[in-house]
Amino acid sequence: MNEIGGDPVPKISYRSDLVVASPIRRIAALLAEARRRKDIISFGGGAPSLEPPKELVEEAIKILKDHDVTRPFAYGATKGILELRETICADLKKYGGIDYNPDQVIVTEGATEGIYVALSAVLDKGDEVILMDPTYLGYSEPIKLLGGKIVRLPVYIGEDFQPSLDLLNEKISDKTKAIMILSPDNPTGRVIREDIAKGIVDLACDHDFWIIADDTYKHIIYEGKHVWISALENAYERTITVCTFSKSASLPGLRLGYVYGPEEAIECMERIKQYLTLCPNTFSQMVVKKFLEGELKERYIKEVVVPTYMERRNVMGKALEENLPDATINWPAGAFYFFVDISNYLKQLGMDDEEFANKLLEKKSVVVIPGKYFGENGRNHVRLTFVSETNERIVKGVELIAEFIRENVK
Amino acid sequence: MNEIGGDPVPKISYRSDLVVASPIRRIAALLAEARRRKDIISFGGGAPSLEPPKELVEEAIKILKDHDVTRPFAYGATKGILELRETICADLKKYGGIDYNPDQVIVTEGATEGIYVALSAVLDKGDEVILMDPTYLGYSEPIKLLGGKIVRLPVYIGEDFQPSLDLLNEKISDKTKAIMILSPDNPTGRVIREDIAKGIVDLACDHDFWIIADDTYKHIIYEGKHVWISALENAYERTITVCTFSKSASLPGLRLGYVYGPEEAIECMERIKQYLTLCPNTFSQMVVKKFLEGELKERYIKEVVVPTYMERRNVMGKALEENLPDATINWPAGAFYFFVDISNYLKQLGMDDEEFANKLLEKKSVVVIPGKYFGENGRNHVRLTFVSETNERIVKGVELIAEFIRENVK
Repeated sequence: MNEIGGDPVPKISYRSDLVVASPIRRIAALLAEARRRKDIISFGGGAPSLEPPKELVEEAIKILKDHDVTRPFAYGATKGILELRETICADLKKYGGIDYNPDQVIVTEGATEGIYVALSAVLDKGDEVILMDPTYLGYSEPIKLLGGKIVRLPVYIGEDFQPSLDLLNEKISDKTKAIMILSPDNPTGRVIREDIAKGIVDLACDHDFWIIADDTYKHIIYEGKHVWISALENAYERTITVCTFSKSASLPGLRLGYVYGPEEAIECMERIKQYLTLCPNTFSQMVVKKFLEGELKERYIKEVVVPTYMERRNVMGKALEENLPDATINWPAGAFYFFVDISNYLKQLGMDDEEFANKLLEKKSVVVIPGKYFGENGRNHVRLTFVSETNERIVKGVELIAEFIRENVK
Repeated sequence: MNEIGGDPVPKISYRSDLVVASPIRRIAALLAEARRRKDIISFGGGAPSLEPPKELVEEAIKILKDHDVTRPFAYGATKGILELRETICADLKKYGGIDYNPDQVIVTEGATEGIYVALSAVLDKGDEVILMDPTYLGYSEPIKLLGGKIVRLPVYIGEDFQPSLDLLNEKISDKTKAIMILSPDNPTGRVIREDIAKGIVDLACDHDFWIIADDTYKHIIYEGKHVWISALENAYERTITVCTFSKSASLPGLRLGYVYGPEEAIECMERIKQYLTLCPNTFSQMVVKKFLEGELKERYIKEVVVPTYMERRNVMGKALEENLPDATINWPAGAFYFFVDISNYLKQLGMDDEEFANKLLEKKSVVVIPGKYFGENGRNHVRLTFVSETNERIVKGVELIAEFIRENVK
């Protein structure tokens, strides 16, 4: 029996001790509070700041004014409504040239549920999952919840954060069950090179493990092009791809993503999802379907999303180079973030990246995310998103970081 | 390596073998297909058939027309937006007279995710959960996914499906971690008696286990009144309550429910939910908040939901008594279902309940759910929902069941 504030409650599960609260969500919550008191420049959470396309808002109103108003409020199939899955398949064909049918697609509550069901369908206790280090911090906790073991594959800023196939080969064991490939990556902005992706597929074939491709940022690319992993030779039957509408359509609050892959894996995810969330939000699905129809998505991404974020990226990159000359700055090829190696400054400051971030917030009201949250190899870096502030505030924030360093060098 | 249609895919998890597809979801899918070909009377799935309150549809449109349209499409807190949690607390106070604060509440993707996170927060491998038999079929699969063990507590139609405290006492072991209490119950329609609920709380205190109260149908009551388990003496610190807006507000497609209980348990659920679904749908939360404000909910439930379903229940009960005189019929005190003991007929037909349901659909195009899906002790019963058909079709469907029996008695 635990004692909580004097009141006894029965024991909580050890399982829940396996997972830590997301530090980025924690910072976001603190931030919301702090903002009520003062102006804070946030290079923290990667939530899209654009309005969703107005056509989607109009579509939402139209659906609600429709005479059959019961439909958007009714249960749908666990895998998602068929019309949306058909539209997703057409979209995959259009952009990726890949062939999937609606039974190979499951609609999820954002990429978060996509990652969880994908891992659930392939992982058993003790199975190993290879994660790049650093990479998105939302992979390790579900792997732990599912009894899996994390094997870290270091990637380095000096190599554009591209994984080394030799090093990967060393990390593979007879327990390897999957590798996660996030491209473009969070936090590093790396777009995986096609020859390296092919090498990973070859290793996955040789050692018979899954590739879980997280395509969350596939449309947010500034340089190079997206590699559709499942389209690579021999990859189709061992690749599960996770995707989301949150970033490309600027509507994370609708909580919609999807997973596609071999039908046998999708069928497992469907069974598991029945007991996690039953089915996706019907109304949201009807709205999002519109995004994939006609030219709306293409226009919104080409004319709004990529140009806006590209400009902010250029502003931030330039400001970083001018203000932090001793940092190692790798311009992101995609996604929303700079992942900056500030080890030279940290040495002068006598701080680690977490202390740096905490004191920077305290003294200058600027939020950055400590690199170590993304893996051991992320230490001495900080992640800065350019997604949520204007150009002027981006410059101001970077200047404040430089000021903070000047004032605190020992 | 599995061979699927000739294409090799890496191994799927054993975990996914733990769970079976929900037979009711399977029947619903078959039904959707069959309905395109012929008229089918469905006493199958318990999806609300009413339109949601028109005020909620108006509110939804108002939110979308608001000048700050980014809000409904943005991420919110993992536990749900604060305004909704505050409104939920006021609602719990108003209807149940119970005191909770917003930190003791987490908003979930329907009761389904509520059940999953509640079980996740308390269960470790090998822990036992006591389930009544029969009861809702959505408990056993998540328990298995989480490595728990199911202990069945039989309840009997002759005892109004009320659990026996003596028998419960026998089922408790040092591995007992929780008991699930669904009241009103699906499939039996039982509303738990207060003295029995108190007895369960006493046993939970003596043996230090959790009570997970599933209040999905708390507002759908025809006789007696709802027992608010956490309000019973000594129950507050060991009761986690799961609830949903799907049934009372007729909007299951918005996928919103909530869980309340001791803050320590809610905090665990929050951590786990971060990696399941991240946060609930912001737009849906803004809409549903309206349901709990002013007199809307009270009016909708008193004037629309309960009268409509009560009338259909009365029509179905009367039709069952007239047409199936050899069945044992227990009128449901709440929820959407009759759970009818048809063993006398099954003996004459030489069928079990599943074969009965299959042949009835084939020959008469009437859907009922085999009782065994709800537990071993549900064998020789069938569940009939009165939620989705009109009075006329309810009578017609029951007459067709009687006709089927007459035509097939050996």
